[in-house]
Amino acid sequence: MKPAHSIAITRIAELAGVSTATVSKVFNGRSDVAAETRAAVEKIMLSHGYQPRTRFATAPLLELILHELNGPYAMEVIRGAERAADTHRMALVVSDLGGKHVPDGKWIENTLYRRSRCVVAVLCGPSEHQLAQLTGRAIPVVMVDPLTEPDPVIPTVHAANRDGGLAATRHLLELGHRRIAVITGPSDVLSGRARLDGYVAAHDAAGVPLDPALVREGDYQVEEGRRHALDLLGLPEPPTAVFACNDAQALGVYQAAYDRGLRVPDDLSVVGFDDLPLAKWVTPGLTTVRQPLSDMAAEAALMAIRMAHGESPAQHRIVLPTPLVHRGSTAPPRRGTAPTGRP
Amino acid sequence: MKPAHSIAITRIAELAGVSTATVSKVFNGRSDVAAETRAAVEKIMLSHGYQPRTRFATAPLLELILHELNGPYAMEVIRGAERAADTHRMALVVSDLGGKHVPDGKWIENTLYRRSRCVVAVLCGPSEHQLAQLTGRAIPVVMVDPLTEPDPVIPTVHAANRDGGLAATRHLLELGHRRIAVITGPSDVLSGRARLDGYVAAHDAAGVPLDPALVREGDYQVEEGRRHALDLLGLPEPPTAVFACNDAQALGVYQAAYDRGLRVPDDLSVVGFDDLPLAKWVTPGLTTVRQPLSDMAAEAALMAIRMAHGESPAQHRIVLPTPLVHRGSTAPPRRGTAPTGRP
Repeated sequence: MKPAHSIAITRIAELAGVSTATVSKVFNGRSDVAAETRAAVEKIMLSHGYQPRTRFATAPLLELILHELNGPYAMEVIRGAERAADTHRMALVVSDLGGKHVPDGKWIENTLYRRSRCVVAVLCGPSEHQLAQLTGRAIPVVMVDPLTEPDPVIPTVHAANRDGGLAATRHLLELGHRRIAVITGPSDVLSGRARLDGYVAAHDAAGVPLDPALVREGDYQVEEGRRHALDLLGLPEPPTAVFACNDAQALGVYQAAYDRGLRVPDDLSVVGFDDLPLAKWVTPGLTTVRQPLSDMAAEAALMAIRMAHGESPAQHRIVLPTPLVHRGSTAPPRRGTAPTGRP
Repeated sequence: MKPAHSIAITRIAELAGVSTATVSKVFNGRSDVAAETRAAVEKIMLSHGYQPRTRFATAPLLELILHELNGPYAMEVIRGAERAADTHRMALVVSDLGGKHVPDGKWIENTLYRRSRCVVAVLCGPSEHQLAQLTGRAIPVVMVDPLTEPDPVIPTVHAANRDGGLAATRHLLELGHRRIAVITGPSDVLSGRARLDGYVAAHDAAGVPLDPALVREGDYQVEEGRRHALDLLGLPEPPTAVFACNDAQALGVYQAAYDRGLRVPDDLSVVGFDDLPLAKWVTPGLTTVRQPLSDMAAEAALMAIRMAHGESPAQHRIVLPTPLVHRGSTAPPRRGTAPTGRP
């Protein structure tokens, strides 16, 4: 984003052929402006790099938008962002997209209305038009764990997903497993593809052939982990280990093992991904790849705050490491007694 | 709170013997005012029921403060509050007290500075002085699940903790258990005492004597549930069932059973309290008392918003029901084979 030049509101009004009151309304995100008028004014504001001058103290707000306010993943993210915002005496505003991956018109309207300073988007992202509205008002956006590769001008914070998938699978190979199933994330999600890449790379490196029957596409939810695991355990040659690609799916694998009367890790090894608090609470404790979610969110929030103060980000892509955390859910496979999965 | 009479800022300045600029600073929560001056101005503002007139559009913020941004309890609460705030086009500001039960000076200063409209406090509450600062500026406070019985002028939202404790214990008694242990919350916390009351009442109603050795004081954390359960399972006459008083402690009981080679529910029945998402994810699924946390937070937020609009709350104490959710962690005790807990 190049430094913006300030031009008077009167000049924008002149160029757009509207009143200064209308320009002011557009700038403040008010809804009582016709859509075409709004678009025309915004276009001029953007093309002239209009930078608002704050005329009175506003509450410095940092917007955190999440695809879904559900489960421990979201909690970790909020905790990290709150920590960073608090350090800078900013208030953290949390918005739930209710499962959607792009915020709706109401969100952008409210965000402009409350003059938020910056935005951190997790597992979701503003549309191209919304991004233009934000950057036109010098409100920076940083994305955490983006679903797809965003425009390279948007800074992003990621976990080392491929490395994590590699470490999880290599751990199982080193224990002696040769039939390792994987339940991936959704195939159109960046993190899911990268973790699967790691699984494939570990097999390649060890010279162990892949069985396509052991590769299943999940959706990062408990139920999908359970469904796939039940199916995998019913195969003529079932896997002796499962890399579940996230902790929720790993719990689903635990449920399937329980339903089949199999014991983790004696009959089936399981590795997750995330290291949510529940990974150490379940029995047995879940061996999993630690994704530093709260640090990722804090990193993103700090970057957004620095950008809101006019600094350019030192790097546009931050990747945090993903160490494997050893707990009780993995063990060498039983020799010569492949679990049949049927009681 | 009686309707406030507006008096001019100049009158307050006159009465306090300070400049109007100083009064304005105090009102805006600025920190560059001596503590005594601040106190004097606030006292006069309070005694005259000074009600601010909003002179320009401010971002309508709802403050949510939580004792700790950790775990699924906090997530449920945030989700409910966000839903309510969003309905009223307000932004939800989330603050973490980092384990403390009273917000620090920085929080109140920031909240006044950003002119928040109302406050919902969960498992924590502003100090008496902070409450005076808030109510003096017509910022209402509603408390969810307060730790101790607050001043009756503060509206509160609770779960029916005693009823829940009663239902959990009665369920175990009806299954035939006669040695039912309880791991309570901290003894100085309202919800913990009420759940224990329910446990006692259920025993009384059934004419089953209580064994004090089976009553343990916990802290609502997983580790404490585990520690007490290990100890209980080592008793000469161990319990056949445990009412864990929250889901986290129930997971600790699961861990202890696992460590001792006991199976839930065959060897030991377990009942939790909360019905967090993880209660249905663990194996076996946890029988637990549902505490409608997100509804409680939404209820509190709506009450706070209505009060911020000048309405008086219809009731000062809202208690939401706590039904028992049957899952797989409870069963009749084994006849004649009391678990010894020692492999």
